[in-house]
Amino acid sequence: MSMEIKCPGFRAAGVAAAIKQANRLDMGLIVSDVPAAVAGIFTKNKIKAAPVLMDMQRVQSGSAQAIVVNAGNANCCTGAQGMGDAMEMAALVADSLGISRELVLVSSTGVIGKSMPMDRISAAIPRLVAGLSYQGIMAVAKAFMTTDTVPKAISSQGIIDGKVFTLTGIIKGAGMIRPDMATMLCYILTDAKAPPGFLKNALIAAANISFNRASVDGDTSTNDTVLLLANGVSGIQIESSEHEAVFQEVLNALCLKLAKAMIRDGEGVNKLVDLMVKGALTDADAYRVAETVGHSPLVKTALFGEDANWGRIVAAVGRAGVEIEPEKIDIYFDQVQLLQNTRWCGAQAEAEATEVMRQSEYALRIDLNMGSGSAQLITCDFSMDYVRINADYRT
Amino acid sequence: MSMEIKCPGFRAAGVAAAIKQANRLDMGLIVSDVPAAVAGIFTKNKIKAAPVLMDMQRVQSGSAQAIVVNAGNANCCTGAQGMGDAMEMAALVADSLGISRELVLVSSTGVIGKSMPMDRISAAIPRLVAGLSYQGIMAVAKAFMTTDTVPKAISSQGIIDGKVFTLTGIIKGAGMIRPDMATMLCYILTDAKAPPGFLKNALIAAANISFNRASVDGDTSTNDTVLLLANGVSGIQIESSEHEAVFQEVLNALCLKLAKAMIRDGEGVNKLVDLMVKGALTDADAYRVAETVGHSPLVKTALFGEDANWGRIVAAVGRAGVEIEPEKIDIYFDQVQLLQNTRWCGAQAEAEATEVMRQSEYALRIDLNMGSGSAQLITCDFSMDYVRINADYRT
Repeated sequence: MSMEIKCPGFRAAGVAAAIKQANRLDMGLIVSDVPAAVAGIFTKNKIKAAPVLMDMQRVQSGSAQAIVVNAGNANCCTGAQGMGDAMEMAALVADSLGISRELVLVSSTGVIGKSMPMDRISAAIPRLVAGLSYQGIMAVAKAFMTTDTVPKAISSQGIIDGKVFTLTGIIKGAGMIRPDMATMLCYILTDAKAPPGFLKNALIAAANISFNRASVDGDTSTNDTVLLLANGVSGIQIESSEHEAVFQEVLNALCLKLAKAMIRDGEGVNKLVDLMVKGALTDADAYRVAETVGHSPLVKTALFGEDANWGRIVAAVGRAGVEIEPEKIDIYFDQVQLLQNTRWCGAQAEAEATEVMRQSEYALRIDLNMGSGSAQLITCDFSMDYVRINADYRT
Repeated sequence: MSMEIKCPGFRAAGVAAAIKQANRLDMGLIVSDVPAAVAGIFTKNKIKAAPVLMDMQRVQSGSAQAIVVNAGNANCCTGAQGMGDAMEMAALVADSLGISRELVLVSSTGVIGKSMPMDRISAAIPRLVAGLSYQGIMAVAKAFMTTDTVPKAISSQGIIDGKVFTLTGIIKGAGMIRPDMATMLCYILTDAKAPPGFLKNALIAAANISFNRASVDGDTSTNDTVLLLANGVSGIQIESSEHEAVFQEVLNALCLKLAKAMIRDGEGVNKLVDLMVKGALTDADAYRVAETVGHSPLVKTALFGEDANWGRIVAAVGRAGVEIEPEKIDIYFDQVQLLQNTRWCGAQAEAEATEVMRQSEYALRIDLNMGSGSAQLITCDFSMDYVRINADYRT
């Protein structure tokens, strides 16, 4: 993580509001000096938390100036009261800042099904506003943590027409590793200037090679939210296709780093595995194979056990429901080939593959040798800690 | 388990052949006194073991007289050699019994990708044939165990026209709980007489409410096989639709008991949960919800933790990809309602639901309150033992 996490024109703060427990940062606020162009992507779960429903509507205007977030309560399955509480959080922030209420977005993460403690939230908002500073982004990265063990923030720069722009991202949560702790929140800030339509497309493209390809356990939460705010204070305007390409490249790299940081910090996660499937008939087929292998509990426990158990991988490929040739599968761990034409490459190869699996991060490549379809998934192991954490979580 | 596991007209034996380890039963043989009508259902995995491919072809004749099975080696991903080995196993048994080679079926279960130890297998076959007895079925139930902890055999009777017929089933393996131990094998024997076409349909119908609704971890193996042999020695002939209904009812009940026995014996399984989804728009929708909930690692770890974590259940329902009304979900544990219209029923209900979850077997009911679609899945918890067993398995 970079030591200096800032983005020009964005102030931020975090405070302890005792939403679920005392004496920890659990509310955060980010405010742009000027209204920013905004794009957002949200959970595809049919059950959506109140702030997600509110934000989905507000980002359609293309413009936002503040994000307020709390940990400890997801404000999900809370009915009309929950929607009112989300609106009130935004209103309190807007009034305190003296900006339009519609320019404030809200995120909540934590337990599902409990009413929001609005007394403590409204008491905390003036302190958040009073604490705003250009050095405050890291405090928000800490405040929206739930089961995360470290704050995750990354700042990147790009150059357009000889001038530097900044893209800064913070992220929390790891897939549905803790579902009632309600999951992935990611805010990306930039001082470049770009229209909301471009930002939306750029964010979707970046998500498709990062967040949407990152899997802890195949679950998706009720609160997943990614927001991208562009305030333009750098004076750099994304206006040509060359500019767009530069911005997209920096955004892609940032999102991939954020996604990996999120998975690496998932509780019970010891191994980060770049799962690459090629040689499928179509990209969609390749992705189904990647999903089936990457979510298989048996494959994931073998990754945890550092066991080059290609039989489990092959069995998962075979049940993915796509066209394969059973006798043509190759499997590699990094550069070590363990399976050729669905036959074991021998004890020496297995010893080398096991060596690769001892690393905390490596690539697992599956080649179906049929066509040119390919897909990639960032996955992880499945450990005893995962079960312990998730079995014990609410008790 | 019944103390007396027999089926008239079927002899059987088990021997220790040292296929993977010494001094345990690991080969079994079942022989009908006369050629029997046969039906089989086999894994849908695209990667199929050699004996599965062979049996799939042989059952098409509608007739079989013997099944030989080994544990310790799955004979899968073994190429042309593997197919030759399966054929040779059948030939050795047939020649030793003096019957046609095409009447012998073969199953193998165990590690994927290793050549079969044909020297030890061929040495064991004369001992199997010499050991055949009408009391031997339990020895086969022991011999084909892999990670199973107890042999699982059930005998049932039905009455047609005042005469008793028997249905006896043995089963091993638990879904893909141990994938390279290659999975579910089930043999069902009956002394009733019925045409192969009826047996096939009856077996598919019974499997659809038992084996196909039983899930340990969503994986399916390369070797799954269910065989039904009807030798007719009782003199009872299934010839009217009333007879068929009686036979089907006994078969359904037997398959459901066998499936539950298999799941209950899965290593790392502490809870057997009857998951029932109703009120979906279609049965297919209900089944997708049941599958998504029943395979969710987060739900399954909560079952293990005896945690009435309805937030995880609701989140899984929401991502199942079917039409739901987010505010209309009801959830029950046995008769205790924990969620009504997606709102928590309170602390008293949660305490009672937690009490239900302390049992080793209970029902989890989800009502979507939209239509008349329903589905059922037998699922189980996901424990630390599951991870430990599967991470350590090959080492």
